[in-house]
Amino acid sequence: MVNIALLGYGVVGSGVVELVERYNDRLGRKEINIVSILVRNKSKHRDELYSDLITEDINELLNKGFDILVEVMGGLHPTYEYVESAIKANKNIITANKDLIAELGEPLFLLAKEHGVTLRFEASVAGGIPIIKPLTESLRSGNNIESIKAILNGTTNFILTKMDKEGLEYKEALKIAQELGFAEANPEADVLGYDAARKLAILSSIAYDQKVYWKDIITEGITNIDSKDFKYANSINCKIKLVAQSKRNKDSIYAAVKPVLISNEDKLANVDNEFNSVTVTGDAVGELIFTGKGAGKLPTASAVFGDLIDLIENRTYTVDCFKGNISELDNSISQSCEAMIRISTLESETAINEAKQHFENVKCVDIAEDEVIILAGADSENELENRVKQISNLAFVSGVKTMMVI
Amino acid sequence: MVNIALLGYGVVGSGVVELVERYNDRLGRKEINIVSILVRNKSKHRDELYSDLITEDINELLNKGFDILVEVMGGLHPTYEYVESAIKANKNIITANKDLIAELGEPLFLLAKEHGVTLRFEASVAGGIPIIKPLTESLRSGNNIESIKAILNGTTNFILTKMDKEGLEYKEALKIAQELGFAEANPEADVLGYDAARKLAILSSIAYDQKVYWKDIITEGITNIDSKDFKYANSINCKIKLVAQSKRNKDSIYAAVKPVLISNEDKLANVDNEFNSVTVTGDAVGELIFTGKGAGKLPTASAVFGDLIDLIENRTYTVDCFKGNISELDNSISQSCEAMIRISTLESETAINEAKQHFENVKCVDIAEDEVIILAGADSENELENRVKQISNLAFVSGVKTMMVI
Repeated sequence: MVNIALLGYGVVGSGVVELVERYNDRLGRKEINIVSILVRNKSKHRDELYSDLITEDINELLNKGFDILVEVMGGLHPTYEYVESAIKANKNIITANKDLIAELGEPLFLLAKEHGVTLRFEASVAGGIPIIKPLTESLRSGNNIESIKAILNGTTNFILTKMDKEGLEYKEALKIAQELGFAEANPEADVLGYDAARKLAILSSIAYDQKVYWKDIITEGITNIDSKDFKYANSINCKIKLVAQSKRNKDSIYAAVKPVLISNEDKLANVDNEFNSVTVTGDAVGELIFTGKGAGKLPTASAVFGDLIDLIENRTYTVDCFKGNISELDNSISQSCEAMIRISTLESETAINEAKQHFENVKCVDIAEDEVIILAGADSENELENRVKQISNLAFVSGVKTMMVI
Repeated sequence: MVNIALLGYGVVGSGVVELVERYNDRLGRKEINIVSILVRNKSKHRDELYSDLITEDINELLNKGFDILVEVMGGLHPTYEYVESAIKANKNIITANKDLIAELGEPLFLLAKEHGVTLRFEASVAGGIPIIKPLTESLRSGNNIESIKAILNGTTNFILTKMDKEGLEYKEALKIAQELGFAEANPEADVLGYDAARKLAILSSIAYDQKVYWKDIITEGITNIDSKDFKYANSINCKIKLVAQSKRNKDSIYAAVKPVLISNEDKLANVDNEFNSVTVTGDAVGELIFTGKGAGKLPTASAVFGDLIDLIENRTYTVDCFKGNISELDNSISQSCEAMIRISTLESETAINEAKQHFENVKCVDIAEDEVIILAGADSENELENRVKQISNLAFVSGVKTMMVI
């Protein structure tokens, strides 16, 4: 018999309870026994399974005898303090909370080590896709991980898919996402790219065995994407995706989250709606791609349940890499790159001629009434940005919008 | 210090040695020490690393003190007997040998259990892709696995990609594959689908927790595919892939390996050359797709190395599912299905009219001088085959070739 306690009984929490009900006692394993569930408001859960085990008092929960704490309540505080107390009471921890790991992973992992308990977090990145465990246990050992390229946020991917397939503007697509439960009432963390940056920080910290802090990652959201961006992207056989990307350079790490153009041929281009995809490149294994549902009740609960069974069967490995100095990150790619540039101007011909003087390999994508759209290259991202700035300073140019092609 | 012995020093074996050299002593782990390597012909390996540890004598190897045996020599005999001896001497085993696991997994797993040692085989399926471990440790627990759909053989995928992209005939593409080392001099196990069937049997046995025997899987190779198949496939926006597929039905399992038509929209359609891809569908997690290099020295060695580190760090879980009665397999899909049918005939119009009487939803794909090509549906695969037989019996029809659309 293994006793577990749950922090939180929302979407993921009820998914975990459902899987415990469904697959308890399976494969001749020890039975899983839920002993306590912490919620904010007891009255909301009166009719649910295990309603007699629900409490609003963390101390009541901590005083129940249990082996594993499953944290699915989200947020940083008081979640951190609750998890801290549980570790100090020598409980193993499973969390689905990327905010917690990305922001406060270091003290938690240190504390867990000190107390000889295990802290697992498979569900914190890419929902149902097993990625933390393969990266930690299978890939890091026999490879230098060279890069990560991923779609890590289901909300923005849903919005971008809707905009692309149905020609919607951002606000219309966001509204639909909110109505369908794919976006929260306050969607900031998703649409501004913070959620993806947190997940990229977690994956990068493991992959490169260095501490990557999410706030150091250049992060750009999707709020400025409009239907014309999709029109022009389509005309050059590209999709627009919010891509979280990191790369190990010789002495540094590059990391960024931003909307980019991806060729339709790229495997990330067909990852739509709430799906996530993570491409990991290792020097021995080459390119590996993991794709699946990045969110949702049962997909996320499936990842939590996998961690649970690992702990029950004594596979108690904890990755040891959220420690030491924070890596300084490069904020631009220092190799030749290309971007789609929308130049707002009424003098299209002059603008194209100017662009040809500033950039290499200028291709005209489209000429509209009030803008010209070009593809242009430079030797580095910095160089490209400098030249874009020069263009934007021209008298007959009223604005410039850039999107990298990767 | 962990002592390991290697059976075999070919492509994968030298990859393992390379990774041990490269990543030994990494992450503060115990050092890996190679103590003996068994080869068939010592003189071939005179100039290689560790040539002083090479032996042709299994008993000499078994008498060296070691903890883990890494089997990368392939084949069934005497490999089985060597591995058996090592297990009886209480050694842990890592193998990359799908033939061995698919054919003789049961006695080996039983013996390993009896002796309390671990038998790991990540590299036996899909090369560098972590699939055995995620399936075994992360997914089986919190899901009923419903189906597997995969490209599991790099050789045939390389040949089919060449045929598609360069308009080659099968024999021409095979020759190139052999010249580039992607196909063996005797390519039978690959091109007739046996290799994929063995890997599908391993994955299915784990996924459905039942013993699936590879010889019971309906298996069709790619030797009859010609350039016209690709031409017609292209015209209906499909690719031809050798797909290994299994499904858990209510009381049975369906499993098959055969060349099929896949819509260009399907994620398997863009898995080209030596890449493999495994789609696993679980009732909680939904569809998960794992893609990467299915063969090659370092990708396969990466999988072996992952197993090695697992054992060194005492993550010694062995899956327990290659036992008991062999499952009887369904040999056809009992739901509505569609196929591309090439009817050899000089009387195209009559043939199409006949087809319309036998099948539902007949669409004409192409009419050539000596054949008509149609898409046609039926309520089950059996039903479809029956009707194809009826067509092939018609006086004015000289032959029929069918390929399922999935």
